[in-house]
Amino acid sequence: MKRKGVLLVISGFAGTGKGTLVSMLLEKYDNYALSVSATTRKPRQGEVDGIHYFFKTRDEFLKMIEADELFEYAEYVGNFYGTPKEYVRSQMERGKDVILEIEMQGALKIKEQFPDALLLFVVPPDADTLEQRLKGRGTETPEIICKRLHRAVEEAEFIKQYDYVIVNDKIDECVEEAHAIIQSEHYRTMRNMEFVEKLQKDLAKFQQK
Amino acid sequence: MKRKGVLLVISGFAGTGKGTLVSMLLEKYDNYALSVSATTRKPRQGEVDGIHYFFKTRDEFLKMIEADELFEYAEYVGNFYGTPKEYVRSQMERGKDVILEIEMQGALKIKEQFPDALLLFVVPPDADTLEQRLKGRGTETPEIICKRLHRAVEEAEFIKQYDYVIVNDKIDECVEEAHAIIQSEHYRTMRNMEFVEKLQKDLAKFQQK
Repeated sequence: MKRKGVLLVISGFAGTGKGTLVSMLLEKYDNYALSVSATTRKPRQGEVDGIHYFFKTRDEFLKMIEADELFEYAEYVGNFYGTPKEYVRSQMERGKDVILEIEMQGALKIKEQFPDALLLFVVPPDADTLEQRLKGRGTETPEIICKRLHRAVEEAEFIKQYDYVIVNDKIDECVEEAHAIIQSEHYRTMRNMEFVEKLQKDLAKFQQK
Repeated sequence: MKRKGVLLVISGFAGTGKGTLVSMLLEKYDNYALSVSATTRKPRQGEVDGIHYFFKTRDEFLKMIEADELFEYAEYVGNFYGTPKEYVRSQMERGKDVILEIEMQGALKIKEQFPDALLLFVVPPDADTLEQRLKGRGTETPEIICKRLHRAVEEAEFIKQYDYVIVNDKIDECVEEAHAIIQSEHYRTMRNMEFVEKLQKDLAKFQQK
């Protein structure tokens, strides 16, 4: 079977370790590529165009929206951020499983446009663990922590729209689970219709016998 | 997450080695159980009731049909064969992934009644390999081989109704693939709604804060 990449969307509550999961997948296995976002934000020190972001002027970005070249986009603190289709598609053609680490609203927009996308949601083992992890970081004020927990309550309503739920209890196991799920998805019938149709045609020669 | 068993339906053309796949899964891993069929056929030497089949009289079998106790059934050379729901369900409750090795028509009937069932279809790498394997057995007449190949042509039309397609090129790899697919399916959101709903309720306490 010819192996085409899968488009992966990974989301999760703040504090569930989805960033770590994504980094570890990229580091450990060579079948993954991270989607590169386009933004109108100015590059920061050390950021490279085409690696960290595709840096665009506001005009260029608006033209991309116009030409339907983005899977989804949003404005945040005065800057546009979006997911260029072209980069994702070319990586998938090369056989890479492309990871998009985006929040829920963007994720559901992707699924609408691209039903073959695989949506993974990372959760903590339970609510108390989530609270402890957010507090344990020691970097956020109690107000921010409270906001994040409220946000988690809202987001939890939409988990059922994701294809898979992965519990991040121990990060190493979580990485293995996510990888196994993604690799298994390559065998889904809908992802192998080319092969199935070829086999079907190929078998038809026996009908003449 | 509480682990409930998955109902697996494994089909494939005659000569693709699905019987070997099933035997190897059962031998290698302890999470599988084979579904036991009910039949009105008389026990053969060495066959044990409840292990090889549930042996039933014609009257008992008709009562099982009446009481909707079978997922599917068919009559073959004057005898009834069917899949009792009760046995499958009790094994799944115990956490076993229950394997049904049945032909396509039965498989699609199961999916209708039990949409959570996972349907796997085993295929050869290509049509010529299938022909060679059937001939290589040396046990069937050319007429039978011809019949089986015609049957494969018909069955190929329905592959797209299966969830996954597994190519049996090397049987060891095929077993590993099938096992990985089945284990990954346990993380499907729809199979973990109890956990998701519990987490949702659990998180709701933060709304009061």
